[in-house]
Amino acid sequence: MPPHPLQEILQPKSIAVVGASETSEGGRYLSSLLKLGFKGQIYPVHPKHDIVLGLKCYPGVRDIPDDVDYVIATIPSSLALNLIDDCAVKHVKCIHFYTARFSETGRQDAIELEKEILRRAGKAGIRIIGPNGMGVYYPAWGLSWTPAMSSQPGSIGFLSQSGSVAFEIIESAEVRGMHFSKAVSYGNALDLNESDYLEYLSQDAATRLIIIYIEGVRDGKRFLQILRRTTPKKPVIILKGGRGQSGTRATASHTASLAGSMTVWNTAMAQAGAVSVAHIEQLLDTAAAFYFLPPAYRNHVGVAGAGGGWSVMAADLCEEAGLNVIPLPDAIRQALKKAGNPVWDWVTNPVDFSIAVELGPSFITKMMAENPDFDLNIVFLDPQRNRGALSSDVILNEFPWSDLQKKPLFVVLLDWGKTAAGTDLAGSELYRDLRNKLIGMGIPAYPTVVRAANAAGKMINFYVDQNKNLTD
Amino acid sequence: MPPHPLQEILQPKSIAVVGASETSEGGRYLSSLLKLGFKGQIYPVHPKHDIVLGLKCYPGVRDIPDDVDYVIATIPSSLALNLIDDCAVKHVKCIHFYTARFSETGRQDAIELEKEILRRAGKAGIRIIGPNGMGVYYPAWGLSWTPAMSSQPGSIGFLSQSGSVAFEIIESAEVRGMHFSKAVSYGNALDLNESDYLEYLSQDAATRLIIIYIEGVRDGKRFLQILRRTTPKKPVIILKGGRGQSGTRATASHTASLAGSMTVWNTAMAQAGAVSVAHIEQLLDTAAAFYFLPPAYRNHVGVAGAGGGWSVMAADLCEEAGLNVIPLPDAIRQALKKAGNPVWDWVTNPVDFSIAVELGPSFITKMMAENPDFDLNIVFLDPQRNRGALSSDVILNEFPWSDLQKKPLFVVLLDWGKTAAGTDLAGSELYRDLRNKLIGMGIPAYPTVVRAANAAGKMINFYVDQNKNLTD
Repeated sequence: MPPHPLQEILQPKSIAVVGASETSEGGRYLSSLLKLGFKGQIYPVHPKHDIVLGLKCYPGVRDIPDDVDYVIATIPSSLALNLIDDCAVKHVKCIHFYTARFSETGRQDAIELEKEILRRAGKAGIRIIGPNGMGVYYPAWGLSWTPAMSSQPGSIGFLSQSGSVAFEIIESAEVRGMHFSKAVSYGNALDLNESDYLEYLSQDAATRLIIIYIEGVRDGKRFLQILRRTTPKKPVIILKGGRGQSGTRATASHTASLAGSMTVWNTAMAQAGAVSVAHIEQLLDTAAAFYFLPPAYRNHVGVAGAGGGWSVMAADLCEEAGLNVIPLPDAIRQALKKAGNPVWDWVTNPVDFSIAVELGPSFITKMMAENPDFDLNIVFLDPQRNRGALSSDVILNEFPWSDLQKKPLFVVLLDWGKTAAGTDLAGSELYRDLRNKLIGMGIPAYPTVVRAANAAGKMINFYVDQNKNLTD
Repeated sequence: MPPHPLQEILQPKSIAVVGASETSEGGRYLSSLLKLGFKGQIYPVHPKHDIVLGLKCYPGVRDIPDDVDYVIATIPSSLALNLIDDCAVKHVKCIHFYTARFSETGRQDAIELEKEILRRAGKAGIRIIGPNGMGVYYPAWGLSWTPAMSSQPGSIGFLSQSGSVAFEIIESAEVRGMHFSKAVSYGNALDLNESDYLEYLSQDAATRLIIIYIEGVRDGKRFLQILRRTTPKKPVIILKGGRGQSGTRATASHTASLAGSMTVWNTAMAQAGAVSVAHIEQLLDTAAAFYFLPPAYRNHVGVAGAGGGWSVMAADLCEEAGLNVIPLPDAIRQALKKAGNPVWDWVTNPVDFSIAVELGPSFITKMMAENPDFDLNIVFLDPQRNRGALSSDVILNEFPWSDLQKKPLFVVLLDWGKTAAGTDLAGSELYRDLRNKLIGMGIPAYPTVVRAANAAGKMINFYVDQNKNLTD
């Protein structure tokens, strides 16, 4: 297969940032290139400056001595058409218009201007990213949106129609130990659209997992076709914005999208094998499951480590998430009996640690890890409960992690709302320390069981369906 | 109406703690009475000590010189029957059995013992709380479960079949600025059961809001009758444990409850006007809405303060939570036009602050607060986004809180997962500071829009239904 056309576009050798004074949005893009170590030529363009951030600045794109591959435009929309003419002279391959206030305003003149941009760029062979989007985050190539973004590459490919949502998702993902191959915030999708980007990520070897925030599609048929071809190779998680009447109204003023019917959408997503989520938290929770964990092709879950009430609720929430909370396998019961455990006949799955306290967390969870009746496990850690004097290492050493990690393992690290309150600083520190050490071991940590159960359910369901389709 | 029989039981003048050595569970109850300043007589009872925590200790209940109102029993189950005989001599009115390992073990001898306890206590006119429960938390009377629990009384009455769930709910609620009138963790509900406690809280003047974690009911007909009478007076939020097959199995080993059919349960709850929630997070979120906010009898919500993508998703999530995200009222549009605002024709509801930035948060939210088309408002604060240099006061001073608080106001205080990660300490501090100041103003803060929207939807739905029934 020949390389996808976007591969060349997204690996420019030279970039001009148009509208780059030191304090402007253009300056922010310039700093980002410098900070993330973009290796090609960088040309600031601004009519009023000679030097910007230590680089020679040009009054216009035409004044740049060489050809330019890629342009980041942060200028007002009224200057867009002239810019395209200038870029045509310099054989620019792609312009990312950060510039906004086009069709999303709903105003006729802005809509007409957008059309003319597309026409004129097309004539010059220039592709457009945006307008009204943050553009490309590609840490391994030195491209990002702010200097604060991580330079560490990872395996998530991310498409977002919204810039602010993209920021939040990327930063929140980084906090949870997940990193990105490429992300595109593509806004109004005037030229290059969701289908082009998805096709590219689908073929991109560095991308193992694709996540999408989308408000509306430009070409539904093509998008579904590509989606269907992608999901057997890598999971695709989709968060749809504009599901209801008011959300649809809001998408129009945000990215000029037509949101369409949700019934049709949901059916199409299910048939294409995509994982649908309802909000950012769920998107991140589900992404963490796919990012860190091996697949499992059956839904028998073992749950251990909580007290009685939490065990009851964990069972409910796992079941409601589509998991099968099987009874404790007889082999484990018999092993408990043989070990002389006094509650062997009483313990069930979920294993209630308030009654199974004699067992110690290690003994029972090791058996759960090894027993083939369980396909995945959920383990509770409660750092704030009678643990004041314990260090994170003491707590962690109670569990046989390397055994447990042979199957998908979800840890519920109960928070009790305290980390946000900061009323118990030692408790907060312990919580963070545990959380970061778990992430370091490649174990996703969830603050509540409902979030762990939902992520587990969505992941298992994906693999079960995938397996079914492959063996059909 | 004569005072409810539980009123006298829960306001004992003297308490004996049976099994109270300094390091035991009994000692913990003793410390709690001392710490929370219980004003009556306290009698530690333990065969091996003369003094416990500075108080004279008695070898048995019979050795206490006076009569005793209330006994907290932490002794093994094998000693329970003898204790009842001793308590009968001292005219004890109620024994709280913290003691566990009765019918919840599923073992015949334990089930028989429980029955005999009930029979013998009944004969002696002694009421039983528990067994297998934490008992009574009544901060205004000096009763609690651990010395760490807050002595500050509030207006939530709380029933919990589970002790560990009760702990988590109480501590998490305190962190969010909510306090309790009374809480009872009643475990196996051998004698006094959920109906008795609910009836008492229903009549209790200090209780404005009732929250319940329940696994199974002893007498469904009576419970529903009392529930129906309660909800017109005060909201009742119910979290049901044991909803599915595996959860039902787990309730049996936890509190020996029969969970029953969820279809029947859900219909009954809806008919009785109770607010059903699915997990602890949702229980606390919903409780915070009722605890802090005035009622509203229509569901027209105004949303402001987020960027474009968040505005789209806020609209979806509000709608999915049963709220009506109406278009921006024309009066507000015209006022914007009159003020010379360049985006007056483009702004909608949710108000996207990335396009309405010229307005300033104060101008638009004040109009939303004052416009009668909106019944409630949701306002976003994003402390981690381009706010590095701002203090919480600067951020808070941008909004007209006293105007906004005339209607139910939900604040979404976006977290980006950072408070738990501790990677951005200044950001975490700012977050906490904002959150605690909002709580201080009586404004509930939610870390995500889905949680705010769900809490708002459940609250408004309750008041709309209540209003409908009252005017029928």
